[in-house]
Amino acid sequence: MTPRSDCKALDADDPLRPLREQFALPDGVIYLDGNSLGARPKSALDRARQVVEAEWGKDLIRSWNKAGWFDLPARLGAKLAPLIGARPDEVVVTDSTSVNLFKALAAALHQQEQSYPDRSRRVIVTERENFPTDVYIAQGLASWLERDYEIKLIDSPAQLREAVDASTAVVMLTHVNYRTGRMHDMREVTALAHAQGALMLWDLAHSAGAVPVDLNGADADYAVGCTYKYLNGGPGAPAFIWVPERHQQAFRQPLSGWWSHASPFTMQPQFEPIAGIRRALCGTQPITSLALVECGLDVFSQTSMDAIRTKSLALTDLFIELVETRCSRHSLELFTPREHAQRGSQVSFAHPHGYAVMQALIERGVIGDYREPHIMRFGFTPLYTSFTDVWDAVDTLADILDRKQYDPDARRDAVT
Amino acid sequence: MTPRSDCKALDADDPLRPLREQFALPDGVIYLDGNSLGARPKSALDRARQVVEAEWGKDLIRSWNKAGWFDLPARLGAKLAPLIGARPDEVVVTDSTSVNLFKALAAALHQQEQSYPDRSRRVIVTERENFPTDVYIAQGLASWLERDYEIKLIDSPAQLREAVDASTAVVMLTHVNYRTGRMHDMREVTALAHAQGALMLWDLAHSAGAVPVDLNGADADYAVGCTYKYLNGGPGAPAFIWVPERHQQAFRQPLSGWWSHASPFTMQPQFEPIAGIRRALCGTQPITSLALVECGLDVFSQTSMDAIRTKSLALTDLFIELVETRCSRHSLELFTPREHAQRGSQVSFAHPHGYAVMQALIERGVIGDYREPHIMRFGFTPLYTSFTDVWDAVDTLADILDRKQYDPDARRDAVT
Repeated sequence: MTPRSDCKALDADDPLRPLREQFALPDGVIYLDGNSLGARPKSALDRARQVVEAEWGKDLIRSWNKAGWFDLPARLGAKLAPLIGARPDEVVVTDSTSVNLFKALAAALHQQEQSYPDRSRRVIVTERENFPTDVYIAQGLASWLERDYEIKLIDSPAQLREAVDASTAVVMLTHVNYRTGRMHDMREVTALAHAQGALMLWDLAHSAGAVPVDLNGADADYAVGCTYKYLNGGPGAPAFIWVPERHQQAFRQPLSGWWSHASPFTMQPQFEPIAGIRRALCGTQPITSLALVECGLDVFSQTSMDAIRTKSLALTDLFIELVETRCSRHSLELFTPREHAQRGSQVSFAHPHGYAVMQALIERGVIGDYREPHIMRFGFTPLYTSFTDVWDAVDTLADILDRKQYDPDARRDAVT
Repeated sequence: MTPRSDCKALDADDPLRPLREQFALPDGVIYLDGNSLGARPKSALDRARQVVEAEWGKDLIRSWNKAGWFDLPARLGAKLAPLIGARPDEVVVTDSTSVNLFKALAAALHQQEQSYPDRSRRVIVTERENFPTDVYIAQGLASWLERDYEIKLIDSPAQLREAVDASTAVVMLTHVNYRTGRMHDMREVTALAHAQGALMLWDLAHSAGAVPVDLNGADADYAVGCTYKYLNGGPGAPAFIWVPERHQQAFRQPLSGWWSHASPFTMQPQFEPIAGIRRALCGTQPITSLALVECGLDVFSQTSMDAIRTKSLALTDLFIELVETRCSRHSLELFTPREHAQRGSQVSFAHPHGYAVMQALIERGVIGDYREPHIMRFGFTPLYTSFTDVWDAVDTLADILDRKQYDPDARRDAVT
């Protein structure tokens, strides 16, 4: 078993260690929930002050131009692009992940309707275990269109090959599963979809900033994702949508608000989409929240996704090893793949009293979270999680389990 | 002509005068653009700090419960409700006005499709002069549905009676026009729509916080609106949507994200809408921007919409009188109705060099804005605009026009 002294040595050698200083983390907390809400970059406080006091308070309406508010979705998109293998003019930061998924899925269906006027491609393939909002959005869109779209829910990645066929319009998957941390092979799955003439839509909520992503390298068709998890953009910060250059001209989405109009300020009564990625926009964006996204992205510009990935795998390997060694007497079941190629940046263990154990952990300052059924999730964020953090977290977990320091009757009523 | 000394006397007697102290307004500025971006409540700076430093930075993920983030859309909706004649459980603050309009319009069409299975009601009636995004959203939704929906654009309110008939599904209007400041009679127009079996959807972007609104009193069906104009919620702050209790059970909208699910955290793969107004939600909200909305709403709780309206009409009457008296030699054309019942809280004048004159005004600290073609907009926000402000603004305008202190070649390239 890796001793704590080895973790200290690993921390001393960690090239990402200086970046931890850029985050405000409360004392006495080991934060393993960056996969749900990323920690606060210290710079976000000053940036918030600047937006509220100077840009809003002093410059008022002039800030739409002077402070570049109107261009923020595209400017932040360009900054985010390299983290996901996108070109700078292929991404905007805007709206919520759910809303962006609606746009991307609608655009993909539209594209297929144009390519197959007989509308033979009427199936959306996704996973039953996908994050629910993705499935709900597909259900909402499909039922609304009344064009015989069907949603096929597969139960495991192995079923993909059989599920995707000439009737498939879109394969829509979350790259890294929110519950298990299992990661799809983006290149392989995209090729599988394309081989059948289907379009590939990726949800990168648990990938962007967590694992290297190469959307253009994988020849993917559409993607959406989240900025408030591994990208540390702030609570509920606007999400992103990626449309590759090759699809932009044909891109059409039903949320055709004025921010996606070719000339939004000439106030014409006929919608005409702007060229390029801005046609994925809709209405006015929440500037204060949006501006803070940049503070998170600025940390990434000081390192590389490869460096982050190397440390992420080392952290999750260490966590798995320590839990399995120190808690072997307890009914813990690993829900995350051991194979590196299939693992995101989180580790999930099921336990019959998973909710109660997680509450006990949080009580003692080790913050992970819980997902039905029985699953304790631990997210590892190499920008601010140390190897010693991992050791200490497992130490606390082992103590809670060994001494049954949890309330087996604890009932879940919380919302997150 | 009202002398400046009378304005000072009016200010001295103004019961709303103390509220001005609650706003941070820059020195040397007369801000007549609260109809585009409301001024900053002083409390917003502390609130931003609290959200970013304490709620995000210290409490991290726990703030979804502890700080009530998850309930913010509904809690703020309840606070906004009395300003628009709604019940507390009929409003949520969420997403953008465009996105909310999409939801409301889709829900209204769905409701009509249920009531008229022959789908004979296939016309959406709105104004050519409506704010463009409203028309674009209707175009986007209608064309996407491929169900023969048609958008009928009327050229004046007088055409409403003729335009609305048994084929009308929805009448969708902005209560106060963004360009002219002309206000519809909400009760009368709603009754006209209902008399023909149509549903009535109101956009309150330029009404909420500007004029008294009584949605339930008018028996309206759906409404959306904006919090960053007269409600002073902050740049691009999330918008609101109103669904009256009587429509909530049947309310269905295609953006069926997890925040509108009956039990969002049980992670079921089948969408099932939550009861009540939360079914108008979609995905995770931008908390920092959302939280600041409350600072604006808290100012309104210290007065009444009637008091605001009384002062608003006095301010706009004064502005019209002074401009028409002092600038009578110039080619200014009033675009805003003189009748109180038809006037919102802004005054628009057209001038052949409207853009250039507005630039000159802004240069001298009188901030209004410009809308094509040739229209100078002046918004009056009784919470922080004084009668002396109005006098001084007209004094500056008169001087600019009298001495031609503007650049007749100024070209518009700005975005707002």
